[in-house]
Amino acid sequence: MNKKMRVVIIGGVAAGPKTGARINRLCPEAEITLVEKGEFLSYAGCGLPYYVAGIVRAQKELMSTPIGVVRDPVFFQKVKNIRVLNRTEAVRIDRQNKEVLVNDLRQGTRRTLSYDKLVLATGAKPVVPSIEGIERKNIFTLHCVEDAGGIRAGLADGRVRDVVVVGGGLIGVEMAEALAGRGCRVTVVEKLPQILPILDWEMAQIVRRHLEAKGVSVKTAATVQGFEGDEFVRRVQTDQGDLACDMVILAIGVRPNATLAREAGLAIGSFGGVTVDPTMRSSDPDIYAVGDCCESLHRITRRPCFVPLGSTANKQGRVAANNICGREDRFPGVLGSAICKVFDFAVGRTGLGEYQAKEAGFEVRTVLCPGPDKAHYYPTARPLMMKLIVDAGSRRLLGLQAVGPGAADKRVDAAATAIAANMTVDDLSHLDLCYAPPYSSAMDNIITAANVARNKLDGLVQTLTPMEVKRKMDKGDDFIFLDVRSPQEYKALALPNSTLIPLGALRDRCEELPKEKEIVTFCKISLRGYEAAGILSARGFKDVKVMDGGIAMWPYEKKQA
Amino acid sequence: MNKKMRVVIIGGVAAGPKTGARINRLCPEAEITLVEKGEFLSYAGCGLPYYVAGIVRAQKELMSTPIGVVRDPVFFQKVKNIRVLNRTEAVRIDRQNKEVLVNDLRQGTRRTLSYDKLVLATGAKPVVPSIEGIERKNIFTLHCVEDAGGIRAGLADGRVRDVVVVGGGLIGVEMAEALAGRGCRVTVVEKLPQILPILDWEMAQIVRRHLEAKGVSVKTAATVQGFEGDEFVRRVQTDQGDLACDMVILAIGVRPNATLAREAGLAIGSFGGVTVDPTMRSSDPDIYAVGDCCESLHRITRRPCFVPLGSTANKQGRVAANNICGREDRFPGVLGSAICKVFDFAVGRTGLGEYQAKEAGFEVRTVLCPGPDKAHYYPTARPLMMKLIVDAGSRRLLGLQAVGPGAADKRVDAAATAIAANMTVDDLSHLDLCYAPPYSSAMDNIITAANVARNKLDGLVQTLTPMEVKRKMDKGDDFIFLDVRSPQEYKALALPNSTLIPLGALRDRCEELPKEKEIVTFCKISLRGYEAAGILSARGFKDVKVMDGGIAMWPYEKKQA
Repeated sequence: MNKKMRVVIIGGVAAGPKTGARINRLCPEAEITLVEKGEFLSYAGCGLPYYVAGIVRAQKELMSTPIGVVRDPVFFQKVKNIRVLNRTEAVRIDRQNKEVLVNDLRQGTRRTLSYDKLVLATGAKPVVPSIEGIERKNIFTLHCVEDAGGIRAGLADGRVRDVVVVGGGLIGVEMAEALAGRGCRVTVVEKLPQILPILDWEMAQIVRRHLEAKGVSVKTAATVQGFEGDEFVRRVQTDQGDLACDMVILAIGVRPNATLAREAGLAIGSFGGVTVDPTMRSSDPDIYAVGDCCESLHRITRRPCFVPLGSTANKQGRVAANNICGREDRFPGVLGSAICKVFDFAVGRTGLGEYQAKEAGFEVRTVLCPGPDKAHYYPTARPLMMKLIVDAGSRRLLGLQAVGPGAADKRVDAAATAIAANMTVDDLSHLDLCYAPPYSSAMDNIITAANVARNKLDGLVQTLTPMEVKRKMDKGDDFIFLDVRSPQEYKALALPNSTLIPLGALRDRCEELPKEKEIVTFCKISLRGYEAAGILSARGFKDVKVMDGGIAMWPYEKKQA
Repeated sequence: MNKKMRVVIIGGVAAGPKTGARINRLCPEAEITLVEKGEFLSYAGCGLPYYVAGIVRAQKELMSTPIGVVRDPVFFQKVKNIRVLNRTEAVRIDRQNKEVLVNDLRQGTRRTLSYDKLVLATGAKPVVPSIEGIERKNIFTLHCVEDAGGIRAGLADGRVRDVVVVGGGLIGVEMAEALAGRGCRVTVVEKLPQILPILDWEMAQIVRRHLEAKGVSVKTAATVQGFEGDEFVRRVQTDQGDLACDMVILAIGVRPNATLAREAGLAIGSFGGVTVDPTMRSSDPDIYAVGDCCESLHRITRRPCFVPLGSTANKQGRVAANNICGREDRFPGVLGSAICKVFDFAVGRTGLGEYQAKEAGFEVRTVLCPGPDKAHYYPTARPLMMKLIVDAGSRRLLGLQAVGPGAADKRVDAAATAIAANMTVDDLSHLDLCYAPPYSSAMDNIITAANVARNKLDGLVQTLTPMEVKRKMDKGDDFIFLDVRSPQEYKALALPNSTLIPLGALRDRCEELPKEKEIVTFCKISLRGYEAAGILSARGFKDVKVMDGGIAMWPYEKKQA
């Protein structure tokens, strides 16, 4: 390697500093210059909702090391040997001469920086729709420290009561919780028929009900048409009516900030991000791109995707630095793993959703598997609703979604590891996960779900999803919807058109049921429903199915008695 | 398959009922008889410490389904189609005639049960040493519901104050916590030089200090010589002095209960368990063995091992049933994954420990990696101390140990999945684990630890373990023990013979240090220590090493200022 290699990095939030630090580690003689448009460096963008919520008290915490040292230009120079030019904008890349033209925003002066290797870490930018009234005050995105500061200042005067969050994705629901926690009345307005498109519809429904139970209004399939008001926003117009508001949070997504790259003629992908190879190199061999400004490869579909996340940014920064310093390293891509906290729920997923998997050409089987996340008799056990997405042909796990008060993150991480290793559900069901009652059941939720998947793939059980059952009901199909819970449970809450025969009595009362008619069994989580189907099939009933996931996964309204 | 296949199962706690239920599912016509010596069926043995602690209120909860139905003989008959003979002891297996002689303990009558397939699920039994006075009252093992009931009754009269727990393994520390929680003064006496042999010594030291901080006395390398007293035990004699006590818990381990199998001439392994193949078949093709009575294959070493756990028992039961019913299934073995709660700590591990790995012939590298388990600025972040065990040749992950108030179980499960897939630390460092500040750092602890391992394997950093540093100190080696934390941190707590130069000042103050002398850098978790080593090496210092894990992993006494 050229010992005096000059590296210029554009972007100082996540992937940029990581890349610089690693380069300094591998090539201490390299001259590293980091250019950042904003004031602040290396801050935790993902922590902004918690700063708005007041859970994280001071902005400073988001840009400090664990022992409280602020990562400012002096820190980077002293510790990482990186020269930082903050409040400096990169204006143009001259690939011919390997120079970057930068503009010092403090002094308004321009100069050029020469590079041997250039790293683009320009991040993403929030999508701001061109809707009438968008320029009014108290309409915020949540992308940088300044946004969060503005929202907190807006809340501080005590006159913000009603808030509309436009967009029900990860940031939208995190902000809904943050603002509800600050005493605001929050309405989430989402254009799609469901919130949280990282989840399949029925899983998102469970989260929606939890948001609503916590006092957040949710409007789906709703389009914002305008922001009324004076200097400040006062009212949001939607195709489902107007909403009074004192503040609007725009959270309809982000796009790669690839303007510089595009203008320099680098290859850009279909999501608008810089195209990179597994070494994080762009179409110019001396220019790398890392973090939210570039596209990733999906490890299952092998197609490009755009999943902006701080975790990915850090990994990509390390890979880029390794390659820049002559150490071969390849980023294998992402699985779209994501998680967020929504009040008492954790909401996580990895791999492909059901519809993504179908679209990618897989022969999809799904499992809905609710259950306690720990030994059911242990007092801290909490419900966890899981969905597995499986390829019928190869028996491979394609995806997992987990929501509820139980420990979703643990199951998502095990599944993400399993998917990266191309594990089948058979492999999954034999995993030696750690077990003790305060942490899991003897059969962990993942292992139970994998066993259900194996039963389905092996044709040992016929199932219908709750959505399929509902469609049958709505069509007026003639079938017996057999609830096998106890009379007490049935009295407290029953699904429409259901017949009760408790599991313990079923062997004796089989004769009450017609042998040729379609029977769909269920219970709270459909474990007893599964037992019941076995009993009936063994007795010669011809058409017995289990409703996957039971009442716990019924995504429609449930009437309490 | 023979539709009227007769199956006899001996043992009704975990693996036996599971096997029976699955057989009934696959072959509803099979005649299944389950023989259990005790009164109770299908109870959660792993929950007994929590019943003693009072966290689980009633015995009944340990033997009920999640909706509170007690799994008694009627339940098994009605729901699982299994005939249960409880309080019935299997006396002898006649392999020639395929019969089991059983003794009805209620009536004292004997009879024979014919089988086509026999399943041994006879479990394990606690080791009871032949020490003088062992017969006195208030000396308990913790193996069955009756043991736990006896302990609770002993506690109930209010005269039990001092308890000695003999054995510092999983059950021993769980019982220490349970009894301390009931107001007892607890002393753990362990024969080995450390508690919790599932962990390497330095990891066990961290747990030991936590136990001591919670008021539990721990004596290691101590041998019990006798139990003095009258009708009741009053004093435990050890080679480290006598201990007054009102109750003794014996928790020195369990052995496979394989007497029946041995007497029937089945092959028995070196741990005393029934030898089985991956289909769970014993040396007799019509006899299967599942759960704690049999030995398992270790997935890494491919050697037999004995790891009695309810999680494994359930998996093995399913595999045995599948094979009995003609569906091929193979149990791939175990990784020795285990976890327990020790007051505020979770203590988990999977795979091989450092010394096990060396013994198995691997070229071992280790990483000690402490850090917060969530984004450090998120208020619920808690420390987690991890150790990775890696094979230098193949770069494969061999084991992970995790202790602390942080979420150890999540990291153990991801590691168990990775090890099952033969992942290298390079694979591990690229995993797409789910990230949001309430659940992890942008670089999860596992990914950071994997990156440290990669740095070590690639020769990018030289390290010493705290134990190696301590040995150098004790030998009187001449080296600089360079603490690079802040003066405030140093003032609060410093390691012996250490020199302070804060990281931020190191570039300017390098000259104070001799270039040729060995320097060992560290900080709280050795992240700054790692930065410091990089700075010094870049400045031409010849012999710079980092102390792995920093002060957080220093297993010796730390003097608060």
